[in-house]
Amino acid sequence: MAGLPTVSDVAERAGVSRQTVSNVINSPDIVRPATRERVTAAIRELGYRPDASARRLRTRKSATIGVRLEPVLDGISGTLLDRFLHAVTELAATRGLRVLLYTASGPEEEIAELARLRDGADVDAIVLTATFAGDTRSRWLTENGLPFVAFGRPWGVDDVNSPEHLWVDVDGAAGVRQAADHLLDQGLTRIAFLGWPSDAGTGDDRRTGWWDAMTARSGLSADELDLLDVETPDDVHLARAAARDLLLAQPGLQAVVCVSDSAALGASMAATALDRSDVAVIGFDNTPVAAALGISSVEQDMAAVAAGALDLLLGSTGSDVVPRGGLAAGEAHRLITPRLVVRSPLHLDRAPAPTASSPTPPPPRRASPMEGQQ
Amino acid sequence: MAGLPTVSDVAERAGVSRQTVSNVINSPDIVRPATRERVTAAIRELGYRPDASARRLRTRKSATIGVRLEPVLDGISGTLLDRFLHAVTELAATRGLRVLLYTASGPEEEIAELARLRDGADVDAIVLTATFAGDTRSRWLTENGLPFVAFGRPWGVDDVNSPEHLWVDVDGAAGVRQAADHLLDQGLTRIAFLGWPSDAGTGDDRRTGWWDAMTARSGLSADELDLLDVETPDDVHLARAAARDLLLAQPGLQAVVCVSDSAALGASMAATALDRSDVAVIGFDNTPVAAALGISSVEQDMAAVAAGALDLLLGSTGSDVVPRGGLAAGEAHRLITPRLVVRSPLHLDRAPAPTASSPTPPPPRRASPMEGQQ
Repeated sequence: MAGLPTVSDVAERAGVSRQTVSNVINSPDIVRPATRERVTAAIRELGYRPDASARRLRTRKSATIGVRLEPVLDGISGTLLDRFLHAVTELAATRGLRVLLYTASGPEEEIAELARLRDGADVDAIVLTATFAGDTRSRWLTENGLPFVAFGRPWGVDDVNSPEHLWVDVDGAAGVRQAADHLLDQGLTRIAFLGWPSDAGTGDDRRTGWWDAMTARSGLSADELDLLDVETPDDVHLARAAARDLLLAQPGLQAVVCVSDSAALGASMAATALDRSDVAVIGFDNTPVAAALGISSVEQDMAAVAAGALDLLLGSTGSDVVPRGGLAAGEAHRLITPRLVVRSPLHLDRAPAPTASSPTPPPPRRASPMEGQQ
Repeated sequence: MAGLPTVSDVAERAGVSRQTVSNVINSPDIVRPATRERVTAAIRELGYRPDASARRLRTRKSATIGVRLEPVLDGISGTLLDRFLHAVTELAATRGLRVLLYTASGPEEEIAELARLRDGADVDAIVLTATFAGDTRSRWLTENGLPFVAFGRPWGVDDVNSPEHLWVDVDGAAGVRQAADHLLDQGLTRIAFLGWPSDAGTGDDRRTGWWDAMTARSGLSADELDLLDVETPDDVHLARAAARDLLLAQPGLQAVVCVSDSAALGASMAATALDRSDVAVIGFDNTPVAAALGISSVEQDMAAVAAGALDLLLGSTGSDVVPRGGLAAGEAHRLITPRLVVRSPLHLDRAPAPTASSPTPPPPRRASPMEGQQ
């Protein structure tokens, strides 16, 4: 094939050995001037460009960050890590760094892939995602001297404050607390939490925000709050069923704060089906589904998460990995506060149509920006 | 920093020059055996691993494919290229190839980045996305000998069948035709198309599928079809307004085939608001929004698109780029047929609730799997 010229092409053209070409590139001062000129002429004529690879070989720096690409998720919130990847890639580019993707079907396979990346000097550092309690990957990276920063707390281990373990995460508790406070500010008090089953660090963290806000301001007792604390797997249909049970058991319910937009969509559907669309619903992740249906939601700012990750890894400027131990314990992590995006619900309600044949069409139940267009 | 050992570290440890280390790695036969043993011992002791970078430098092969990461899109269909990226990365990994991401804010900046990737031998080939009429990027790649395959037809140019220009695309016309045929099979004939304004190759292609099916089977005249051919930008609110106008102008309308799920969501909302939820709506892209709301939609199989792209670039197996000109004209592109995913609508309707205070709750208008749970 046509392809790029190689060291061998240059060597042949200049009539020298490949080692001489390599010497001209890496240590020109040890090559006789006449030979050097012949080689540089051949390099110029062929358009041979050794820059990146030669530099990589000499310096062991790749100006590249490795990020695992997770299998695609079809759920409503499945694009969160993709949004993080976009943000990391765009911010890394502003520092002259590229992102190399790798795949793995589990922690062990990922560690094998990390070993290959390290052995090949393919990456300078790793951005780890989807951390879990007892994460074997972060231990391997630490032991093998491959710098990394994690998106996600090291759940359940005591190196939360270790300066060796850099991480950035979103403060889910603060986000859910904002949502609950927003409803409490409106005078609502009977506010439920539709969360994930316990044992998920992220889900428990988000529940804490609701519990703290409600304990501080709702006037409800712990026993009353327990009745408003409901669990569902992250599935629209199951969330709808759980919300329906909750709405039937709690006729006075005023609002549901949800652990995800999937749960919020299920809750919205259940409320509308039971003619309870007065019940306010707030989701988490601010997905396109929430935006399209007018569901308020807590947004994780992926640009801030990515910026925090790169700052921890590289310092506030530049493209070189900060030596480990260069950070104090308190500087080794960043907790990003999410923000609540408030929307007016756009129910798929029937509204009076100009051509309606019904003699007494029901009035619209609720004003919203979209309803005004009808 | 700790970091990885460099050539200099090895040279120092072995008491030789960096060039000698390089010679041991690249041409061990020209190094005296005693020196060679000292260097290999130092390499072993330090854990120095020259594999990938040295090989890359020698062979100009990176075992890496470059893919541009587009700015994140927040729309309902914004994740399509992310799904393609996932599929390419996972399939490339099975061939021992990695994916390197790059960014660019426009074609000129992208060409500059492509030049850097080529100059650094950072990638063996490019997978181009978001092709457009008169695409300057594909011309640059062809002229500069960087192999590539495009996801997207070279709209409007006559090298559609050139074996030099590899591309894979989804047959949008065939997908929309499936949707229209599905409705025609049910005896519906007054089926509208809610499309994008003309001049978008992709949108016009999809419209063709509706037009061909309707011309063949609906019994409607071209004039009648023109009245059912409606345009909207890809925005839920604008699509809702356009669909509302259409529904008011066409009281006998039975169905709307849509160019996207955004348009389909708008059409569904308009139909429900006008009490016309008997109007069938079909979208395109099979997004999480369509799945969550029970909207039928045409699915683009990104795994098939990615497999087609890699087959064209690399042949059916292996990881080496197929020489250009190695393919006959008819073999240089792949058109993937999408498939229709049929769903029952899950309207956010009010339904009779056990605790309803209304004396005569209206019956549910339509049976669907979800309604059965109420």
